Amino acid sequence: MVRVKIVGATGYGGIGLLERLLSHPEAKVVCLTDLLDVGQPISQVYPHLTGFCDLRVQAPGEEVEEEKPDVVFFATPDGVAMQEARRYLEQGIKVIDYSGDFRFRTAQEHDAWYPIPHTAPDLLEQAVYGLPELNREAIRQANLVANPGCFAVAALLGWTPAVAEGLLDLSSLVCDAKTGVSGAGKKPVATHHFPARNENMNAYRIVGHRHAGEIEQELGRWAGRPLRISFVPQVVPLTRGIMACLYGRLVRSVRAEEVRELYREFYRHSPFVRVREGEECPGVLAVRMSNFCDLTIVVDQRTERLIVISCLDNLVKGQAGNALQNMNLMFGLDERLGLWDFGKYP
Amino acid sequence: MVRVKIVGATGYGGIGLLERLLSHPEAKVVCLTDLLDVGQPISQVYPHLTGFCDLRVQAPGEEVEEEKPDVVFFATPDGVAMQEARRYLEQGIKVIDYSGDFRFRTAQEHDAWYPIPHTAPDLLEQAVYGLPELNREAIRQANLVANPGCFAVAALLGWTPAVAEGLLDLSSLVCDAKTGVSGAGKKPVATHHFPARNENMNAYRIVGHRHAGEIEQELGRWAGRPLRISFVPQVVPLTRGIMACLYGRLVRSVRAEEVRELYREFYRHSPFVRVREGEECPGVLAVRMSNFCDLTIVVDQRTERLIVISCLDNLVKGQAGNALQNMNLMFGLDERLGLWDFGKYP
Amino acid sequence: MVRVKIVGATGYGGIGLLERLLSHPEAKVVCLTDLLDVGQPISQVYPHLTGFCDLRVQAPGEEVEEEKPDVVFFATPDGVAMQEARRYLEQGIKVIDYSGDFRFRTAQEHDAWYPIPHTAPDLLEQAVYGLPELNREAIRQANLVANPGCFAVAALLGWTPAVAEGLLDLSSLVCDAKTGVSGAGKKPVATHHFPARNENMNAYRIVGHRHAGEIEQELGRWAGRPLRISFVPQVVPLTRGIMACLYGRLVRSVRAEEVRELYREFYRHSPFVRVREGEECPGVLAVRMSNFCDLTIVVDQRTERLIVISCLDNLVKGQAGNALQNMNLMFGLDERLGLWDFGKYP
Amino acid sequence: MVRVKIVGATGYGGIGLLERLLSHPEAKVVCLTDLLDVGQPISQVYPHLTGFCDLRVQAPGEEVEEEKPDVVFFATPDGVAMQEARRYLEQGIKVIDYSGDFRFRTAQEHDAWYPIPHTAPDLLEQAVYGLPELNREAIRQANLVANPGCFAVAALLGWTPAVAEGLLDLSSLVCDAKTGVSGAGKKPVATHHFPARNENMNAYRIVGHRHAGEIEQELGRWAGRPLRISFVPQVVPLTRGIMACLYGRLVRSVRAEEVRELYREFYRHSPFVRVREGEECPGVLAVRMSNFCDLTIVVDQRTERLIVISCLDNLVKGQAGNALQNMNLMFGLDERLGLWDFGKYP
Repeated sequence: MVRVKIVGATGYGGIGLLERLLSHPEAKVVCLTDLLDVGQPISQVYPHLTGFCDLRVQAPGEEVEEEKPDVVFFATPDGVAMQEARRYLEQGIKVIDYSGDFRFRTAQEHDAWYPIPHTAPDLLEQAVYGLPELNREAIRQANLVANPGCFAVAALLGWTPAVAEGLLDLSSLVCDAKTGVSGAGKKPVATHHFPARNENMNAYRIVGHRHAGEIEQELGRWAGRPLRISFVPQVVPLTRGIMACLYGRLVRSVRAEEVRELYREFYRHSPFVRVREGEECPGVLAVRMSNFCDLTIVVDQRTERLIVISCLDNLVKGQAGNALQNMNLMFGLDERLGLWDFGKYP
Repeated sequence: MVRVKIVGATGYGGIGLLERLLSHPEAKVVCLTDLLDVGQPISQVYPHLTGFCDLRVQAPGEEVEEEKPDVVFFATPDGVAMQEARRYLEQGIKVIDYSGDFRFRTAQEHDAWYPIPHTAPDLLEQAVYGLPELNREAIRQANLVANPGCFAVAALLGWTPAVAEGLLDLSSLVCDAKTGVSGAGKKPVATHHFPARNENMNAYRIVGHRHAGEIEQELGRWAGRPLRISFVPQVVPLTRGIMACLYGRLVRSVRAEEVRELYREFYRHSPFVRVREGEECPGVLAVRMSNFCDLTIVVDQRTERLIVISCLDNLVKGQAGNALQNMNLMFGLDERLGLWDFGKYP
Repeated sequence: MVRVKIVGATGYGGIGLLERLLSHPEAKVVCLTDLLDVGQPISQVYPHLTGFCDLRVQAPGEEVEEEKPDVVFFATPDGVAMQEARRYLEQGIKVIDYSGDFRFRTAQEHDAWYPIPHTAPDLLEQAVYGLPELNREAIRQANLVANPGCFAVAALLGWTPAVAEGLLDLSSLVCDAKTGVSGAGKKPVATHHFPARNENMNAYRIVGHRHAGEIEQELGRWAGRPLRISFVPQVVPLTRGIMACLYGRLVRSVRAEEVRELYREFYRHSPFVRVREGEECPGVLAVRMSNFCDLTIVVDQRTERLIVISCLDNLVKGQAGNALQNMNLMFGLDERLGLWDFGKYP
Repeated sequence: MVRVKIVGATGYGGIGLLERLLSHPEAKVVCLTDLLDVGQPISQVYPHLTGFCDLRVQAPGEEVEEEKPDVVFFATPDGVAMQEARRYLEQGIKVIDYSGDFRFRTAQEHDAWYPIPHTAPDLLEQAVYGLPELNREAIRQANLVANPGCFAVAALLGWTPAVAEGLLDLSSLVCDAKTGVSGAGKKPVATHHFPARNENMNAYRIVGHRHAGEIEQELGRWAGRPLRISFVPQVVPLTRGIMACLYGRLVRSVRAEEVRELYREFYRHSPFVRVREGEECPGVLAVRMSNFCDLTIVVDQRTERLIVISCLDNLVKGQAGNALQNMNLMFGLDERLGLWDFGKYP
C-alpha cells in the first residue's frame, strides 16, 4: 500500500488526484495540505465527495501526517517544489511535482523559460521527465519525477513517433493548441469569469509559452538535435479537454496508414494512447475524465504535411492522471491502476 | 453473475447502463439491441468505449444472445416494453423498463396520461414502481419493475418524508423542475440543436407533463389520499442534471433542522440520498455522473412553507443508475454495486 | 440632447447603458467614472467598443465632466447612491440608481432587507420606483428614480395584472426564478468561475433575498394590502436571461385566454411587454439583448393555479435597458428611444 | 430604397440578413421564401422578431413579391443559385449568393472542390468574389456576387496584406480554424445536438474542406502565382465566432510593428477590419454580432514565423453581414449602412 501525501490538495490538480486515489486499490492518502481551506474536511470544499473522504486540509508546515508517506505530490504552482522537495527526498520519500520546477535538464534552460531562478539545480540531475509513454524505464527508477505540462503531453505524444522516425522537417513544426478552462486552475480570474468566457475563445501568450520549451527539449532528444516549434495556446469555452493540432512537413512521401501503423507500433505497450481509425476525430468528449490520449493521423498529400490531432483531458492525462500513472510506475505497480476507465457520455 | 440484455442500447439510457455494467463485479452484458447502428460495435457508436467493449448492436427480432439473459432492460420509448415484456417474463427473465408503460397501477390511469392505450393491463398488477428508497422490499420481490421518470425521482425523494409525516397541505404542492438537455434523449431535434439551446432556457408542457401523474400516484400512497400538484418542467443549457424546487405549505410550525432530522431518519438505509447541511445547495455539479440525490431543506418562516431543493443527475439517479440499483435489489445484491462513486469535479 | 454621466461605468450595468447611449439619438455621454480601470479608454476595457467610444474612465471625486450632466446613473453597489445622490439632486441633476438604496418607501423597510442602515431617509420620499409599465406617470415627474431589481422586474410584470384584478389568493404566491450569470456582475468569484459554473445550476439565498422585499412592497400596492411571497433565486449556466415561474392560486374560475386578454389590456400602452400566444414559451433567447419581457400565461385547471412564465434579459429589461427607459420618460422622450430592437438570433 | 428578396429566409443566413435589413435605412424586404415554415409569419418561426416583422414565408416557385426586387439573396445550400440566378439576372435583378456556386473562376475549379458539377459555367465569368476589403471596386460594378465562405473571410483578411507584400514563404501556409456551431446551420444533426456538442471540440474534414480552395484561389491572385495551404476546420462549443490562426514562414526579417503598420495601411479604407494593438487578442466575444474582423499580428522571432489571429462572427462578417456590405456597395451606398454597430457585451 503506497502512502500518499498531497501538497496543494484543494486545487483542480490536487482534487483530481485525490478522486483517483480514493478508488486506487494499492494507495492510501495520509495527508492533505493547502494554503486555502485549512481545517475544513475536503468534502466540504468539494461537496461531491460527501460521504467518501473526510480528511481535513492542513496548513503546510503545521501538518500531521497520519502515517509517513511513501510519496509526495506537489500540486502546487511553480517555485514550491523547488524549495520543498529536498527534505522529502532526503527521508527517502519519492516526489512527483506538477510544476515546471524539474522539467528542464539544467537550471539555465529552466531560467530561460521561467522568471524565478532555479534554487535547486543539483536536483535537476536526478529529476526525470514524467511522460510514461516516452520515458517509462527512467520513471520506474526515479525518486523525483517532473510531471509534464498539459499541452506538452498532447504535443509530445502526437509528434514523437514521427520525429523519432525522421519523417518530419524539424524547422516546420507548428502546434496549435486549444484547452478547456480548467487548465487555468481553480482561482477565479477576470478572463475566466463565466460571462467573459462563455461564448468566447481567444489566443494568449502567442509566443513564449513555457510548454514550448519542454516540448522542444523532449522532442529534441528523439530528433537527436535541437529544434524549435511555434506554439499558440488558446482557450475555448469548455471545462475539460485539450485538442492540439500538430503540423509538420514530411521529408518523404508516406501514406497515412503507414504512419498510423508506425504509431501503433511505437505505442504498443502504452495502453493509454489510442490511434484512431482513418481520419475519424471524435474529439475531447471521447477522452473526457479518462487518462486516454486519442490521436488522429492524417497526411495532407496536397501540401505534403503530416497532421496529427491529439486529444486528451487536461486534468487527467494532462495532469493528475498522468501523475498517478507515474506513481504506479515508481512503485512497481501496473500503470493502469486507478486509471483504467473511460469517462462517461455525454 | 447476472446476465444482462439491453434493448435500446444506443440511446443515452442504454449507454449509461452499459457504462456501469462494464465495471459491475456481478454482471455481464450478453446482448445489445437497437433499431439504430445495427451491426456496429458499440465502441464505434460511442468512441469513448474504444478498448472496453466491442459488442455489436443487433437488430431487435434478429438478435443472438451470447447467453440467455437473467434480466432485460428496456431503454426504449413508451409503448415498446408493453409489447415485448411478456415473452421475457414467461421465460423467467426479469424485466426493468425505463418507459412509462408500467408506472401506473391501472390501465385507466396510464391512459389518462399517455396517448397510447395500454395493451397489457394484466402485467400492471405485477409491476412494481422502481424507486428503491421508497419501495425497496417490493422491488426485491419483483419480476417486472417500472423505472421511474427522472423528474419523478427528484420530486418523490424530495417530498415523501414530509408528506408521510403529514407536514404539508396537500393542496399547496408546486414542483418547479429544471433539467439538462440529455433528458430529452439522443435524437437531434430543433429545440436542442446547440445554437438554439445554448444561451436559452424555457418551460415546456407547462401543464400535463406525464411525470406529474406518477408523482401524484406515488405521493398519494404516502399521503393516504389522492392529491394533485402543479408541475412545470424546464430545460436549461447544461448536459446533465435535474434541480427540482419543491414548495408546500406547512400545516404546523416546525424548524428546518427538525425536518432535516426527519429526512435523515427516513433515508437512514438509503445510501444514495444525502441531506445537505443547513441551507447549502451546491447544485447539480456535486451529483453529476453519480447516483446521488442531494436534498437541501429550508423552512421559509415568513410564508410558512417547506422548500426542498432536490438535485440529481437525470441520466444516473434519474435513469440508468436507478435502474441498475433496481437490478441489484432484484438479484439480492448490495444496491450500491457498480454505482458507489462520486463523479468527478469539475 | 440629454447629457449623461455614468458612475460605475465599467461594470456590466454601466457598459450595458453606455452601449445603448452610443446609439441614442437624444443623449450624449459626458462623463464615466469608476474605481477600476481609471485612466483607460473604455474601449480598452471593453474591446468590442474599439472605434466607437474613447472616453476615459475617471476616478470618482477627481472627474472632469465634459459638460454638466442632466442625469447621473449610479450603476454602483448598494450604499453608494445613498451617499452621493443628494449633491446631484441639489444641482438640479436627475438621478437614476441601479441599487437597492431607494427602492423602499421607508428607511425602516430598507433596513429590514439590507445590512447597511439608510443614511438619507428624507430622499426616500421623493424617490420613485422605476418600473415604467407600472409607474409611468410618477417616473415622468421624478428627479430620483430607483431602478428595480432584475428579478423584481420579471415578477412584477408577470403578476401585477392578475393581482390588480383580484384573481389570486395572496397567501399562495411562489416565485421560482432562474438567472444567467451576468446578474451577479463582472467581478470574478469562485461560484461563477467558468469550470465551477459551467454544467452547474443551484439555488442560493433560498429565503431572504432582497428582491422579495421590493416585489412584496410593489405588489402589495396593487393588491391594496400587504402580502408575502416565497422567492427562490437560482443560477443557471448561461450568460444572460431571467426566467421566473410565478405560481398563484386562483380565487375564481377563469380561462387562460381571459387572463391573456386581461394582461394585453393592462399592458396596451407598454410596448416592451409581449403576452405570448397560447402556452408557447420560446424562452430567454427570444428576449436576449432586447428590452422585452415576454409573458406566457397558463391556467392549470387541475390545481386551479395561474402560472405565468416571465422571461427577460437581466442586463437589459432587468437593468440598463429599463434604466434608460426611465431616463426617456423623465426627459419627456419616447420611452423606446435607444431600446427599440430585438436582439439577434441565435 | 433597395427592394430585397431573400431565398432561404428561415436559415441562420437568411434570418441574420433579415435582422439587419429591418433597421437598414435604405432597404426594404419584399419577399421571403423557403422550403420550410411555408405560410408562417417569420416572427412565429423566430419569436424574437415578434412585433417587428410579420412577412410570411412563401414557397419557392409560388411566391408573390410585394414589389419587384432589386436584389435577390440566395441564402441557400450549394447548387440552388446555380439553377435560379439566371432568371433574376435576366430581369436586371442583382444576385448575391451565399453558397459555393459562384466563388470559383472556372467550372473546372468548382468541380474539383464540389461534388455537384457546375451547370452555369457562363455565369462564372461575370461573378465577382464578394470580399469587399479585397475586391471593392469589382463588387461595385457587379450584378452577381459570390459571398465568400466564412473561414475564407477570416483567412483572406488575415493573410492577404502579408502575401501581397511578399513577406511569406508560400509553401509554409497553415490555417488552423475554429468555428462556433452556428456555422453548420440551423438543421439539427447528431454532432451538434446539445449534449453531443457541449463540452466537445473536434476537427472535421481535416483535408479537403472546400474553403481551402477559395482561399488558395484568392490568395494566389495576390501572390501572383498558385499556392496551397493546409486548412484544418474545427468546431468548438460556442454559438458564434471564428478564430483562425494563420501561420507562415517569413522570407525576411521583420518586426511585428512593421507588419501591423503594413496591415493598417492596407485596410485604411476598410472600416470593418481592426488591427489590434501589440499582441492583444480579446477573442471572438469582442466581434460577436458585429461585422468586424479583428486581427492580432505577432512575429515569432525564434521560428521566423508570422502568426495572425483572425477573429470574426461567422454569421455576420462570415456571412450575412458581409453579404449586406456587398449589397451596399452594389447599390452605391455607404458600405457601413445597417452594419455599423459593435454587438453587446457580455
